Amino acid sequence: MSPAGFHEMWRDLLPVGRDATSGGYRRYAWTGADTDCRAWFRAQAEDRGLRYETDRNGNQWAWLGDPNGRDAVVTGSHLDSVPDGGAFDGPLGVVSAFAAVDGLLARGARPTRPVAVVNFGDEEGARFGLACVGSRLSAGRLTPEDARRLTDADGVTLATAMERAGHDPATIGPDPERLARIGAFVELHVEQGRALADTDHAVGVASAIWPHGRWRFDFHGEANHAGTTRLADRHDPMLTYANTVLAARKKARLAGALATFGKVGVEPNGVNAIPSLVRGWLDSRAADQDTLDRVVAEIRTAAEERGSRDGVRVEVTRESFTPVVEFDNALRDRLAGLLGGDRPEAVPVLPTGAGHDAGILSSELSSAMMYVRNPTGVSHSPAESADEDDCTAGVTALTEVLEGLACR
Amino acid sequence: MSPAGFHEMWRDLLPVGRDATSGGYRRYAWTGADTDCRAWFRAQAEDRGLRYETDRNGNQWAWLGDPNGRDAVVTGSHLDSVPDGGAFDGPLGVVSAFAAVDGLLARGARPTRPVAVVNFGDEEGARFGLACVGSRLSAGRLTPEDARRLTDADGVTLATAMERAGHDPATIGPDPERLARIGAFVELHVEQGRALADTDHAVGVASAIWPHGRWRFDFHGEANHAGTTRLADRHDPMLTYANTVLAARKKARLAGALATFGKVGVEPNGVNAIPSLVRGWLDSRAADQDTLDRVVAEIRTAAEERGSRDGVRVEVTRESFTPVVEFDNALRDRLAGLLGGDRPEAVPVLPTGAGHDAGILSSELSSAMMYVRNPTGVSHSPAESADEDDCTAGVTALTEVLEGLACR
Repeated sequence: MSPAGFHEMWRDLLPVGRDATSGGYRRYAWTGADTDCRAWFRAQAEDRGLRYETDRNGNQWAWLGDPNGRDAVVTGSHLDSVPDGGAFDGPLGVVSAFAAVDGLLARGARPTRPVAVVNFGDEEGARFGLACVGSRLSAGRLTPEDARRLTDADGVTLATAMERAGHDPATIGPDPERLARIGAFVELHVEQGRALADTDHAVGVASAIWPHGRWRFDFHGEANHAGTTRLADRHDPMLTYANTVLAARKKARLAGALATFGKVGVEPNGVNAIPSLVRGWLDSRAADQDTLDRVVAEIRTAAEERGSRDGVRVEVTRESFTPVVEFDNALRDRLAGLLGGDRPEAVPVLPTGAGHDAGILSSELSSAMMYVRNPTGVSHSPAESADEDDCTAGVTALTEVLEGLACR
Repeated sequence: MSPAGFHEMWRDLLPVGRDATSGGYRRYAWTGADTDCRAWFRAQAEDRGLRYETDRNGNQWAWLGDPNGRDAVVTGSHLDSVPDGGAFDGPLGVVSAFAAVDGLLARGARPTRPVAVVNFGDEEGARFGLACVGSRLSAGRLTPEDARRLTDADGVTLATAMERAGHDPATIGPDPERLARIGAFVELHVEQGRALADTDHAVGVASAIWPHGRWRFDFHGEANHAGTTRLADRHDPMLTYANTVLAARKKARLAGALATFGKVGVEPNGVNAIPSLVRGWLDSRAADQDTLDRVVAEIRTAAEERGSRDGVRVEVTRESFTPVVEFDNALRDRLAGLLGGDRPEAVPVLPTGAGHDAGILSSELSSAMMYVRNPTGVSHSPAESADEDDCTAGVTALTEVLEGLACR
């Protein structure tokens, strides 16, 4: 590879969509910042003489070799961000993909299969509330009608936003022929945790994406005056909510799972008013579905038990659920073999709790993920990071993978 | 008294500003509903041949006798409401005041001092965020400049709102001469609690308004991905907040005080994001300032201790504070004497945690409050209530008080 090329790409992309105050990125789908990211992608493709195309769903492709050939080896990620996200989540995978193609060519390797770099659109779902819209549409896991109706906080539909950004929303929909031409998709991503930080490995391989879901907990109490209502006469749902937050943490810890209340709504949300309603959203994930089901059931029971003491009624609604994703074992072992040299068993194989385009596509084609060490473990925040040496190691590893998969 | 008159007034006022969905009242200062309430007040005054006037601050007065006489006996309350408030908080005091004047005249009593019914404007502060604006202005406890600058959620200033409702905002300000002509102000109010509900007394007398305040607790954590961050690596401020909510309840219970977290703000408030910031507002009240100071200090210590375990920084800001209000003891004893007959010591004398116009005026003139039993104890909610017999008892009691204070 050429570290110079990596650094130049990284430097060019770094200011796009960065908020001066927070230092975080606001690259939301089909906005000006997204358009700038897309222009950058296209320029990278054209500078290298790669064949550039945008598919029907707005995903961008840069082809080395025949885009219509069979058994293509594709790598890439996304360029959009969560609100005030970090610089690495998404872009590291795209920049590393171009750098790995550079590395492949610099080695004089001759691909026998088509190779492509991809930028999937709207992965984070920050604007329209649904993640992985680009890959979902292509995989037929989101209907074009439902997609066009998605609406942002300002009431703008995805259809309108696409149109304003120059993409025809009438074209969106399943793309089975394109996916059928892909033999393997490998997504490189900054690690969203500290599993690698405690090892001497800069790069790991994904085993699975944990099953995960969102549950809305509605705590129904009784509005009353905070300055006059005796404690004994209250039906204060904030107490039940607070107890449930602490119970969720405890149950998750005991089960080795994750449980988070990160979003809350309160009615009437007045300083001197005991709430009539506290609504909290539970995000929970675990290595297997049995564990996840058990943890959520335990949190629910804890909420109901406390609710009966507080005179608060608890209602739980599952708002979304994604079953476990097991990445293609053969491809994963192949990657470990390519990365591990003599000791493929030493390459860390990690599960993750986060969804990705590679997870969406895993039902349609052979897909895999590689993680680059993140010393802070922080994700979806400006504090997310990766050391320069580890990024270089990631590019080298991806170059090995491309050579191993496409050139032998 | 004439129960018929009470019922007729109550019935006329009942539909004004009532929300069909919630069944609660939305009578905010200087809105259409408020104008309707004011028109009702004026009509009541004029129907009785009482001299009607609006003072410089928009408070309404209905005079039996000379408005410029000395040592006036004034009774009344307010007609505005909190969002989705009940029917009684405010209106019961105004309607009972008119009914007591009716009762006085029906008895053939001859006042030797001027008697007035008053409706203080903007008592709840629901629209502009500051309570008791009408009485504060008159008492010189809010400058006209500050008042005119108060702004509602739509960005409309109090000055503009007054002007649109036909009241000249240039006239507002202290009204010491008017207040100096008042010998006693008695505010009848629905009880905001269940202290009387456990007694066989329909009516009680106020002793004091508890000192109370608002403290903003900022819990600073670290934003991170809820699906990937190990529990041990988190700095989750929601946990610290939750623990503080439960600690506040416990500390208040042990001290016989009140402590409530009724308002919360979360950043970024995303389902899959560990928050960077949870902001909770503590409303706390106690019988005396030492107890209040101690309870708040204990809650703060509990928050900081838990924060240090969670890796969360806690910042506490006192946003407002009102010291204890002791109502005029002589007037209170006089009321108990008038209500209690042979056993004035049996009349319940109750403190309250809620602010009132009578509390604001207590520093300027002799003021007192009477409470009518509320079987639910609920306040600031459509579930607030008072039995018909208790309302009648309240009017009878207020008639006694007017006769006792103004006619002997």
